[in-house]
Amino acid sequence: MTHQPQHLSAAHFAPILHTFRRQSPLVHCMTNDVVQNFTANVLLALNASPAMVIDAGEAAEFSRFADALLINVGTLTRERQQAMQAAVTAAREAGTPWTLDPVAVGALTLRSDFCQQLLSQQPAVIRGNASEILALAQQASGGRGVDTLLQADAALDAAQQLAKTCHTLVIVTGEVDYATDGQRVIAITGGSPLMTRVVGTGCALSGVVAGFSALPGDRLMNVAAACQIMALAGGKAAAQAAGPGSFVMAFIDALWTLEVEHEAH
Amino acid sequence: MTHQPQHLSAAHFAPILHTFRRQSPLVHCMTNDVVQNFTANVLLALNASPAMVIDAGEAAEFSRFADALLINVGTLTRERQQAMQAAVTAAREAGTPWTLDPVAVGALTLRSDFCQQLLSQQPAVIRGNASEILALAQQASGGRGVDTLLQADAALDAAQQLAKTCHTLVIVTGEVDYATDGQRVIAITGGSPLMTRVVGTGCALSGVVAGFSALPGDRLMNVAAACQIMALAGGKAAAQAAGPGSFVMAFIDALWTLEVEHEAH
Amino acid sequence: MTHQPQHLSAAHFAPILHTFRRQSPLVHCMTNDVVQNFTANVLLALNASPAMVIDAGEAAEFSRFADALLINVGTLTRERQQAMQAAVTAAREAGTPWTLDPVAVGALTLRSDFCQQLLSQQPAVIRGNASEILALAQQASGGRGVDTLLQADAALDAAQQLAKTCHTLVIVTGEVDYATDGQRVIAITGGSPLMTRVVGTGCALSGVVAGFSALPGDRLMNVAAACQIMALAGGKAAAQAAGPGSFVMAFIDALWTLEVEHEAH
Repeated sequence: MTHQPQHLSAAHFAPILHTFRRQSPLVHCMTNDVVQNFTANVLLALNASPAMVIDAGEAAEFSRFADALLINVGTLTRERQQAMQAAVTAAREAGTPWTLDPVAVGALTLRSDFCQQLLSQQPAVIRGNASEILALAQQASGGRGVDTLLQADAALDAAQQLAKTCHTLVIVTGEVDYATDGQRVIAITGGSPLMTRVVGTGCALSGVVAGFSALPGDRLMNVAAACQIMALAGGKAAAQAAGPGSFVMAFIDALWTLEVEHEAH
Repeated sequence: MTHQPQHLSAAHFAPILHTFRRQSPLVHCMTNDVVQNFTANVLLALNASPAMVIDAGEAAEFSRFADALLINVGTLTRERQQAMQAAVTAAREAGTPWTLDPVAVGALTLRSDFCQQLLSQQPAVIRGNASEILALAQQASGGRGVDTLLQADAALDAAQQLAKTCHTLVIVTGEVDYATDGQRVIAITGGSPLMTRVVGTGCALSGVVAGFSALPGDRLMNVAAACQIMALAGGKAAAQAAGPGSFVMAFIDALWTLEVEHEAH
Repeated sequence: MTHQPQHLSAAHFAPILHTFRRQSPLVHCMTNDVVQNFTANVLLALNASPAMVIDAGEAAEFSRFADALLINVGTLTRERQQAMQAAVTAAREAGTPWTLDPVAVGALTLRSDFCQQLLSQQPAVIRGNASEILALAQQASGGRGVDTLLQADAALDAAQQLAKTCHTLVIVTGEVDYATDGQRVIAITGGSPLMTRVVGTGCALSGVVAGFSALPGDRLMNVAAACQIMALAGGKAAAQAAGPGSFVMAFIDALWTLEVEHEAH
C-alpha cells in the first residue's frame, strides 16, 4: 500500500516554523507525569504557549479556548481518563484539533481500552512508535492485542490503514519518521540515537505536533514540518552533546535558535 | 493610589540572602505537577530544604513543622484542593506563614472558587502576574471574572487594594515586579525575557518567596529581596545562555554562587 | 554488630556495569512526582529501560513483565498506595525483585503505616538515609517513631538489624554509603556534597539499585556496584560543575560515558 514517500525541503517547512512562532498557539497538554516539564519547555522554546490543566471540569473549560489539545496516556489513571474524555468532548464541540499519543497501547488494559474508545472520536493526529501504531491499527480494524511483527515497513502500512479507517493523520516515529493521511506519505530523516536516551522526546514531539496541527494550511505538511524541526534540532544538539545530559540543554537551545532557512540549504 | 515605589539596594537584600542560606528554611511546596522538580532545585540551590507532601493527612501533619507553606493551584484537582485546604488550616493553627500562587485564577472555575475561599484564610503573601492579581482583587472586592484591562499600572493598583483588603502582602510580577503591603511599594527590576521561555520561573519564585516569608524581620522587605535575588540570577544566567536550555542550568548555578555584596555595587 | 566493611574495586563493579548496560533491564518505577523525569533520565543514561505505570490495574499487569520494581513513597496518596500494593503483590507472584525507598518514613503517618505493611512483603532491597533506616528498623523490631540518634554508626547497626529481620538487603546512604545483607557490609565512598543540592539523587539511586537487583549473580555485590557507579559519576560531575545546575547535566553525561575500567585504576 505504501506510496513512494515525499521528503520535506527547507522551502516547505521554514515558512511553517515561521508561522508557528508568530502565532504562538496555546497548546493544552494532558500528558504523562514524567514529561510535563520537558514538554512545556520544548513548546516554550518554539514560542508556543503550553498549559497543563487536568481537573475534568477545568480541562473541558480550557479545551474550548485552547488552539490544540494533546492527549498522552503514559501515566493514565481512571480519574485522568475521565478528565481527558471531558477535554476531548469539549475540544470536538469547539472544533479544537486534538492529538493522541497512545503510549504503550496494546500492552496494558486500561489505556488500550481508552485508546480504542478515542479512535472513534476524530483525533486530528495520532503520533506513536511502530508497535503502538500496529496495536492501534489492529484495534481500528477489529483486531485486538499486539502483533509480533514490528518492522518499520509493517508499521508504515499500519499507519496508512489507520489513517484511512479513522480519517486522521498518523505519524509513526523511529529512525525514520513517516507522516501520512492514508494516501500521501512524508518521510522525515535526521535526529539522533541520543534522542532515545532522553525521556520524553517522543512525548514532546506529540505536543509540538498538536501545536502545528492548529496552523492554517495543509495539516499533513504542517505536522510533518513539526517532525522535521524536532529532528533537525536533535541532530544539531547531538553534534554538540557529550551525553544525554548536555543533549537536553542543547536540544532546547537548538529549538530556540533554529534558523531553518540557513540550516537546510 | 500608587506611591512612589522604593528600590532595593544590595545593602538591603545581601544580609537577607545570607540569613536565608544560614537558616535553610523547610518549605512545604504543594505546587503543580509541571514545576515540582524545578521548584525543588531552585530552593536547594539557595540552600533551603524543599519538601513536597500531598496526601491530605500527611500535608496537615507536615505543615505543622515546616517553616513555610506554598499553595500553587496550577494543576488543581478536587482531591488536591482538599489536601491543600487541610495544609492551610494546619499551617494557620501552627502559625506557619503560607503563600498563594493563584495560577490562571479568573479563567477556570475550580481554581477561581478555591482561590476565593483561600483569600479569607490569611495568606502571608500572594504572588501572581498582572491578570491573576486583577482577578483576585475583583474577587476580594465582591466582583467576579477577569477585567479586560491588564496594564501593569492597573495591576499595581489592584495589588495594593488586594493587600489592604486581605491584610496580606502582594507581589505582582512582570517586566518589573512590585511587592506591596498596601501602603509601601517596592519595585524590583532586572531579570530577563528568557525567564518567560522556561516553564516554572514564576512558580519557583513563589516557592522562594514562601521561604523568605519565614525569615525574621520586615516581611515585605524579605519577600522583595526574594524577587530581587531571582531577578539578579536571571540576568546573570541570560548573559551566559545560548537559549532557554542553557538558561535553566546557568540560572540554578547563579542562585548557588550569587555573591550579592559584590554583584550589586 | 558492625563487621569491618569491604570496599569495592573496579575489578568488582566494572563487569557488573557492563552486564547492566548489555541487559538493559526494564525497571518499573512507581516513584514520587518530583523526581520521575530525573529518575528516568538516570536509568536511560545507564542504558536501562525505565517505565512509569501508576494505575493499580496497569501497575499489576506491568510488574509481571518488568525486570524490577521500585516503590518510592515520597508523594504518597491513598490511591497511589493501592496501586503500589497491587504492583508489589504482582511482582512477588512473578518473582520480580522490588526495591523500597521509604522517603521520610517515621515522620508522617500514611507512609509510615504503609512502609510497615511493606516490610513483611519481602523487598529485595531497601535504600534510605540514616533516619529512614533507623525508623524502619524500629518498626521491624516492634518499635514506632523516630529515634533521636542519627549518627551513621547507629544507622549502620540498624541497617544490619533490618536486613536480618526482613531477610533483605539494606543500603543506607550518606557521606559514606553502606550496603549490607545483615552479615557482610560493603562501604561505598566517593560522590560529592553537591549531590545533596539536587533533588532526587537519592531517589534516582533507588531506581538504579532496583535495576541492578535484577542482574544475575551476587545481589549484594550488584546493588553495591550501583551505589559505587552513582558515586563515581557524582564525583566526576562535581569536578566539572559550577553549581547544582551544571552538575545535573554533567552527572547524566558521566553515567553515559563512564568507563569504569579506566577510571578506577
